[in-house]
Parts: sequence; C-alpha cells; structure tokens
Amino acid sequence: MDLKTFIRDIDNFPKEGVVFKDITPLLANAQAMQYTLDKLLEMVGDVPIDKVVGMESRGFFFAPLLAQKLNAGFVPVRKPNKLPAAKTSQTYDLEYGTDTLEIHSDAILAGEKILVHDDVLATGGTAKATCDLIKRLGGEIVQCNFLIELDFLNGRHKLGDIPMRALLNY
Amino acid sequence: MDLKTFIRDIDNFPKEGVVFKDITPLLANAQAMQYTLDKLLEMVGDVPIDKVVGMESRGFFFAPLLAQKLNAGFVPVRKPNKLPAAKTSQTYDLEYGTDTLEIHSDAILAGEKILVHDDVLATGGTAKATCDLIKRLGGEIVQCNFLIELDFLNGRHKLGDIPMRALLNY
Repeated sequence: MDLKTFIRDIDNFPKEGVVFKDITPLLANAQAMQYTLDKLLEMVGDVPIDKVVGMESRGFFFAPLLAQKLNAGFVPVRKPNKLPAAKTSQTYDLEYGTDTLEIHSDAILAGEKILVHDDVLATGGTAKATCDLIKRLGGEIVQCNFLIELDFLNGRHKLGDIPMRALLNY
Repeated sequence: MDLKTFIRDIDNFPKEGVVFKDITPLLANAQAMQYTLDKLLEMVGDVPIDKVVGMESRGFFFAPLLAQKLNAGFVPVRKPNKLPAAKTSQTYDLEYGTDTLEIHSDAILAGEKILVHDDVLATGGTAKATCDLIKRLGGEIVQCNFLIELDFLNGRHKLGDIPMRALLNY
C-alpha cells in the first residue's frame, strides 16, 4: 500500500510558505490506518516497551494504538496548562521565541522503557524536548518513532544518538 | 476491574471550584486501558460503523482505538485553525462567550454510520456541536460514546434523542 497517496499537501499552512502534510485522509481510511499501525510496530520490533509517549495533539492519533498493541501504558506530553497534576516542564527554542511541553511527573518511573511517537519529525524541537522530559524522569528511550520525517529540516540531527525511525520520508 | 480507582480528582482545575477527572493514570496502565477499550466497544455493540469521530484533544485517546477495533476510519473534530483543508464550523454557547469546533468537509460522506467518542460528557456543548457538524455532512450518528458522564451537569439532556452511552457515571 502506498501510504503517500493518503497524505495530502496543503500549501501555506499553518503559515505562508509552509507545505503541510495532512494525514487526515489516511486516518479516515480503515485499511490505510491499519497498515500504518502495522508498519509503525514493525519499526519498533520485538523489544519490550513499558510506556508509549505521544505528543499533543497529532501524536495522540497513533501513540495509544501503539501502546495497546505493545501492551504498554500511554502517556501524553502536552502543551502548557493542560495537564492537571504535578508536572515537569521543558522549554525549547523555536525559530522565533520559545515553546514549552509538560509531562506528569509520576507518568514515568525510573528505568522504564519508553517508545516516543509523533506524526511528523520536522525541526526536532518537540521531539528533543519530549526526550529531555523522559530522561529527567529516569525513562530509557528505546526509539523515537515517526510517521513522517521531513528530511530537509534535519530534525534527526537534533535527536543526537537517540534511536529514531520514520515510516515515510519527504 | 474498578476503573474509578484509575481516575483521580484534581480540585480547582482548570479553574476554581471545578473538580477535574484526570484519566491519565488509567491511560498509563496497559491493563486498565485494555479493559476500558473492551467496555467502550461493548457499549457500541455489533452495529456497523463507518467512521469514529473524536474530539480534540482527550477524545483522541480512545477514538482511534475504537476505529481500529471497529474497522472504521477515524475523523478528528478540532478547535479553530487546526485543520488544514476545507472545513465546516460550528459555534456553540459556553457559560461565558462562545466556542467553535471544526471538521474537514470531506471527512464524512452522506449516509455514513458514525460513532462519536469523547472522554467526558460534561455540559454537552462539545458533543452537541460535534453531532451538529456530522449531521450537516449527512452522517448518521449511531451513538455518542463517553468514558465518563458527569450526571449533575445534565449534558445528556442537550443531546436530545441522539443515542448515548457512558461507561462511568459521577
């Protein structure tokens, strides 16, 4: 199945000059979604995973599915002021300004094996901040797992030696 | 399994006087998540479903899982300016002011059988607006399916004759 036929380019979204990869046609098709899930799981392989961490909001589409298939828990990383209990925050640089991500401080126990999932690896800022949060809680990152990698933004570089895999490259 | 033991009360979140039902401990536990998924599916029963619609953001945790198990597509309903392609919008009243939800206009075809899922039914404003969007696209709502219903807010009333089920009542 050619998954790229289920992903559409939207010009100038969310801002002028950006071509956005819209995965909603893939999500709306049960067969494409199942195939994507199978392939994302293949990238993980046979290693034990305790928790799957997904980033708000589009990381939430596949991270709970991966968790269920891997018999792991699911942990959301969210934008500021969305998580209600005691939390750990990480601020990171954007092209202009900064952004912050948060995780519940009790969501990951020291030594747990963590799979990180997001839909798109772009500049890597979100993924790197998420990995920093997980490490601060003592989690061991087994893999950063993406549906799409935008090669020209070189987000892979920002992840350093954290193992990463992407299903589709552009 | 007593799922309520995996849901914690957070006082005064997101604002003074509100007791927030935090489902993240349930999500973090693979067994509790699997049990919840099984029970949500039991509520749906054996009827064919074409698409599962989940509302941003916490509806995204279980809606794709339900879609995968039901061999249906998944469609996100999102807050304004998040969906990139041609969309349909619905504005609804809050206690103070209004809010708006959006759906991609091509996400649902006329006559499709739709399951709506969100984590919590509170006042019902979000659920009602979502159902209105689905009806405007010609979808047939089979069930509004919630993990939690806050009885004292009487959101059920706002849904009128739309079939609804909730797994946990408070």
